[in-house]
Amino acid sequence: MTTDNWINESLYPAWGQRFRVKRELARVQSSFQDIMLFESETHGRVMVLDGVIQITEADEFVYQEMLAHVPLLAHGAAANVLIIGAGDGGVLRRVLQHRTTQRAVMVEIDGEVIRLAKEFLPDIAGNAWNDSRAEVIVGDGIDYVQRAPDGTFDAIIVDSTDPIGVGEVLFTDDFYRNCARILTPRGLVVNQCGVPFMQAEELRDTSARRQQFFPHVTAYVTAVPTYVGGFMTLGWAAKDASLAAVPVDTIRQRAAAAGILGTTQYWTPEIHAGSFNLPPYIAKHLPAA
Amino acid sequence: MTTDNWINESLYPAWGQRFRVKRELARVQSSFQDIMLFESETHGRVMVLDGVIQITEADEFVYQEMLAHVPLLAHGAAANVLIIGAGDGGVLRRVLQHRTTQRAVMVEIDGEVIRLAKEFLPDIAGNAWNDSRAEVIVGDGIDYVQRAPDGTFDAIIVDSTDPIGVGEVLFTDDFYRNCARILTPRGLVVNQCGVPFMQAEELRDTSARRQQFFPHVTAYVTAVPTYVGGFMTLGWAAKDASLAAVPVDTIRQRAAAAGILGTTQYWTPEIHAGSFNLPPYIAKHLPAA
Repeated sequence: MTTDNWINESLYPAWGQRFRVKRELARVQSSFQDIMLFESETHGRVMVLDGVIQITEADEFVYQEMLAHVPLLAHGAAANVLIIGAGDGGVLRRVLQHRTTQRAVMVEIDGEVIRLAKEFLPDIAGNAWNDSRAEVIVGDGIDYVQRAPDGTFDAIIVDSTDPIGVGEVLFTDDFYRNCARILTPRGLVVNQCGVPFMQAEELRDTSARRQQFFPHVTAYVTAVPTYVGGFMTLGWAAKDASLAAVPVDTIRQRAAAAGILGTTQYWTPEIHAGSFNLPPYIAKHLPAA
Repeated sequence: MTTDNWINESLYPAWGQRFRVKRELARVQSSFQDIMLFESETHGRVMVLDGVIQITEADEFVYQEMLAHVPLLAHGAAANVLIIGAGDGGVLRRVLQHRTTQRAVMVEIDGEVIRLAKEFLPDIAGNAWNDSRAEVIVGDGIDYVQRAPDGTFDAIIVDSTDPIGVGEVLFTDDFYRNCARILTPRGLVVNQCGVPFMQAEELRDTSARRQQFFPHVTAYVTAVPTYVGGFMTLGWAAKDASLAAVPVDTIRQRAAAAGILGTTQYWTPEIHAGSFNLPPYIAKHLPAA
């Protein structure tokens, strides 16, 4: 993967991005995956799992803002939020920014990811680890959703790796069935669904799975600089179809009340509303309405 | 630039994309630039100018649709269109799709780009080269806009390389002054403004230049898979501010009348309207309104 002082992402066998490395910060083989952190010349510090870029300091705001703010503001009164994965703490930080959040449970399977993020990427989570509303569990998200009581959460945010390796079980029927069960009647689940220009099957297959357990399945898009290949899709499964079509003025009012408006670098009420408009090359991979 | 059978894009010195090459198709040093064409494993055929990816068969639709359809449908009755650059013919093809187009003048400085595109990328222009409304000039776009009479064009589309090398003069005061002069009173100019996450100065500097000669300057965004680094911005300079805020229903009606609706893989009326909503990290580089 490393040539001279370059790191080549190995996500796709015949195309991808590469970074020039200032210095390697850590390299750990955890029980689950190969974890590498390095200082890049262009994007600040970067975390790589099994050869795939997970997060860079420079552009993390794009993905984190869209993954956290869109479901919470679409819901409008999400008090209890479950985060699965996201060991760097960036989603947790954004979820806790919302005044509506009373409890944020984060379940990350790999304690080494949390440990290394705390040591080398402390700004990404900020003070979230110490927030009294946060409950951070090192454990299996599959087990957690199996055991959680019915109707526990208003929103579930799945920030996983792609459905290969450790993340694969987060894309199964069982997982989505339990998500539907532990959500409140207005509840919804979002999860990263890859870059459909390169990984269309990820969006297509997981959307079809979600549709078995949720009345309303769609996706929304965000242009993440280091998830290269055009729009990334974030999968959306809700019990209430109106959540994906909240008027922009309502979103703005909710964001102001929640303390989000003006704090973002990518998310805006207009971008929130527009992100559900999919290019035909992406929309064709969703199940028919 | 080539390592084994990989090509590394050299646009940025310490980050970028790479392609595995099936075979090289052509390598020509023209009077203006180094032109390379290769067959990739992932993106079909690819054209590279001075080490920078210009077009791939797989994703050209994203850039071409947004660069051509947005200005023409925002105008609504663009009969005379000037295209500068775009030697592959893809923008010309999209412009000629519009029933409203009566004359499309394309001025490309490098005849070798046209020749090689015709030979190796024939599907990108399709039959556009033979359309009776098309006038293809191998020449200098700067000279062309200097000599063209006042009020000649309804829209000018600048599909240039970045403001380095041969494309640099397309970003000058003189060029934009002449664009304003040769446009009709409702006329507008769009041009590629780079990927602001990596090239913010390109958007910032050229927007400030355009603002000297146009009452309304902004930008719109598109997520092009192989212009890596998040949203690409397309610069927008118009005499009439309302052109960037045409209601989505009007855009849809115009697209239906022009013969565009249903022919696109990226552009839709909703994406058109939403593309003017800029993330704060991009909007901050535009001049104050």
